[in-house]
Amino acid sequence: MPILTLTTDFGTKDGFVGTLKGVIWSICPAAQIADISHEISPQTVLAGAFALWRAVPFFPEGTVHVAVVDPGVGTSRRPIAARLGGHTFVGPDNGLFTPMLEDAEKKGWRLEIVHLMNEKYFLRDVSRTFHGRDIFAPVAAHLANGVPLANLGPAITDPVRLSMPKPEKTADGWRAHITVIDGFGNCTTDLPAASLAECANVVFRLRGREVRGLVASYGHKQPGQLVALVDSENYIEIAIINGSAAKTLGAQVGDVVEVVTT
Amino acid sequence: MPILTLTTDFGTKDGFVGTLKGVIWSICPAAQIADISHEISPQTVLAGAFALWRAVPFFPEGTVHVAVVDPGVGTSRRPIAARLGGHTFVGPDNGLFTPMLEDAEKKGWRLEIVHLMNEKYFLRDVSRTFHGRDIFAPVAAHLANGVPLANLGPAITDPVRLSMPKPEKTADGWRAHITVIDGFGNCTTDLPAASLAECANVVFRLRGREVRGLVASYGHKQPGQLVALVDSENYIEIAIINGSAAKTLGAQVGDVVEVVTT
Amino acid sequence: MPILTLTTDFGTKDGFVGTLKGVIWSICPAAQIADISHEISPQTVLAGAFALWRAVPFFPEGTVHVAVVDPGVGTSRRPIAARLGGHTFVGPDNGLFTPMLEDAEKKGWRLEIVHLMNEKYFLRDVSRTFHGRDIFAPVAAHLANGVPLANLGPAITDPVRLSMPKPEKTADGWRAHITVIDGFGNCTTDLPAASLAECANVVFRLRGREVRGLVASYGHKQPGQLVALVDSENYIEIAIINGSAAKTLGAQVGDVVEVVTT
Repeated sequence: MPILTLTTDFGTKDGFVGTLKGVIWSICPAAQIADISHEISPQTVLAGAFALWRAVPFFPEGTVHVAVVDPGVGTSRRPIAARLGGHTFVGPDNGLFTPMLEDAEKKGWRLEIVHLMNEKYFLRDVSRTFHGRDIFAPVAAHLANGVPLANLGPAITDPVRLSMPKPEKTADGWRAHITVIDGFGNCTTDLPAASLAECANVVFRLRGREVRGLVASYGHKQPGQLVALVDSENYIEIAIINGSAAKTLGAQVGDVVEVVTT
Repeated sequence: MPILTLTTDFGTKDGFVGTLKGVIWSICPAAQIADISHEISPQTVLAGAFALWRAVPFFPEGTVHVAVVDPGVGTSRRPIAARLGGHTFVGPDNGLFTPMLEDAEKKGWRLEIVHLMNEKYFLRDVSRTFHGRDIFAPVAAHLANGVPLANLGPAITDPVRLSMPKPEKTADGWRAHITVIDGFGNCTTDLPAASLAECANVVFRLRGREVRGLVASYGHKQPGQLVALVDSENYIEIAIINGSAAKTLGAQVGDVVEVVTT
Repeated sequence: MPILTLTTDFGTKDGFVGTLKGVIWSICPAAQIADISHEISPQTVLAGAFALWRAVPFFPEGTVHVAVVDPGVGTSRRPIAARLGGHTFVGPDNGLFTPMLEDAEKKGWRLEIVHLMNEKYFLRDVSRTFHGRDIFAPVAAHLANGVPLANLGPAITDPVRLSMPKPEKTADGWRAHITVIDGFGNCTTDLPAASLAECANVVFRLRGREVRGLVASYGHKQPGQLVALVDSENYIEIAIINGSAAKTLGAQVGDVVEVVTT
């Protein structure tokens, strides 16, 4: 059964997501459809990129991922589809797929990106404000049905890229950044845990607070304690046991985390 | 594969929606089920009607739509099922299906409405407070399995109807109304874009603010600007680029939008 | 088609739930997956237990239920799977399945519980913080594929149990407790409606307010009235018609409801 995923900033109140599923099942009735998130903060392309990037490795090859965080809908920004290794991505050309693209390049995967121009695979009437429904969902459903990517439009090699946060090497460690704050208030950073593999000691400083060392998991300290640990994607995360590090610290995406190693 | 949709005011915290799916899959195991919305404001039948109405055209013929915004549950209000053209609707007889019924009548579609009385298609024990689970979900699943509508109860011709908002013609244009405020804060009105097709100029006034002309889409003005545009259902919408018109203007469903054309 | 359900405290913003579905469909591509709730208050095992318990009876035999409210993730708390009658449960051994276990014992069903130790059925890399993804989802998908429970690990007979609230008999009735507050603000108690079957009159007292008698359903009183009624699981519930009893009364889970019968 073909598998599709949806990542949007639509929210779930207004029926937009249900509408996408109606469009998809009209074209590909057996599709399994997973919602990744529909609560990306409106228009925050980077947040959408991270949410999708963390989920993608757990879907099987052949999955088609639709992502719509699209402040430029109805302008000249291109609609695109990208096949990166075994996964296919459909959405606006605004950088949403940057982390998957960077991973694919690192791994030397075959990349194939097209500008969606073949209106045969769109809904008949394309609105100016809802390309998720009128272009991306139907194109994704046709891809799930096996339509070749090349049929959808001309190849492109210059997709828009976001500037992804990266940790900077400092004299005594790293300057990392908070990349994602999850619903528990855990603050993930851009520092891969592997960067600390050789260190005897490590101290993390953010928002005037200091955390010494890493704990193995949330259950290894008392509720209320501020800790650092390796998150489920193998990046360093700052958390409060059974609490919200984000709220307690007032932490925000983009905040610097100074990492001192010895 | 049979397709069903769900539109309720149940929220997603308490497991009620999952329970509906358990009931449906117990009867129709292959059903594809799309959530339209479960965040309709409690007991606001009109909001539920609009959410469903906007999604329905994007589902294939044969879809069965369950809608439960049901302040009268357990009283003498009738449970009904309505086949309107190729779509079937199941829920309380309180006006939830009015816009689909009006559309079907305009298009001259065949209408078939029944009062759900055949308890053979209900769960064995019917509670007084959760007919979504005990009546509407099982009936919908049986319909998806091909049970004829006529088996479910006697035909009726007098379903309850909501008074749907309609724009009024004025001396110099229209008096329109806000019908739906979506999660972005965009304010859709009851004025079809086609009403303005012949106008050289148009001005919209609401909440002491004025908007001149229509923009093509959100990306055609600067963030923060108040604009009017054609929404994805071809109605006039008032929006703030990358912001919330509803919050900024304090706009509410039902607000009048004065439209002056020349 | 195999059916699985998911009950977690993950929220729906971060993509964790979508990731579980990717894992499940990678192993069991035809699975139907129902979300019970992902809005269990973080780490409140009892709330998760109640949400799941209310949904389970409406799923067909053979359903596999994954539940992850797991403050002890990454510690020595055991991952388990339990087959209770025709339903199978997968999650942490922290009491999440207590009400289903108590029901199964009352009914004399066959119980089979195993400590998940066979890593062959886990994802290859198991993180310290996301066993929902790395252990529970893949194990559940293998169970849905027909893998025998006994293959997953050694049998255990001492699962952790929560102390479930129970009403206490008093001189003139019952001391009941609020067990669940739903999204409407309705307050369900632990008092089975059957306990009141023989009573001519009944008065409920909570938070300084008094309710006399039971109403048949929400539609039988005026909006704003405080009422008691039988909920959809046949327990006594305190509600405000078209309003929120929880907000109006300031009621909380665990509050005592004094029940005086004559």
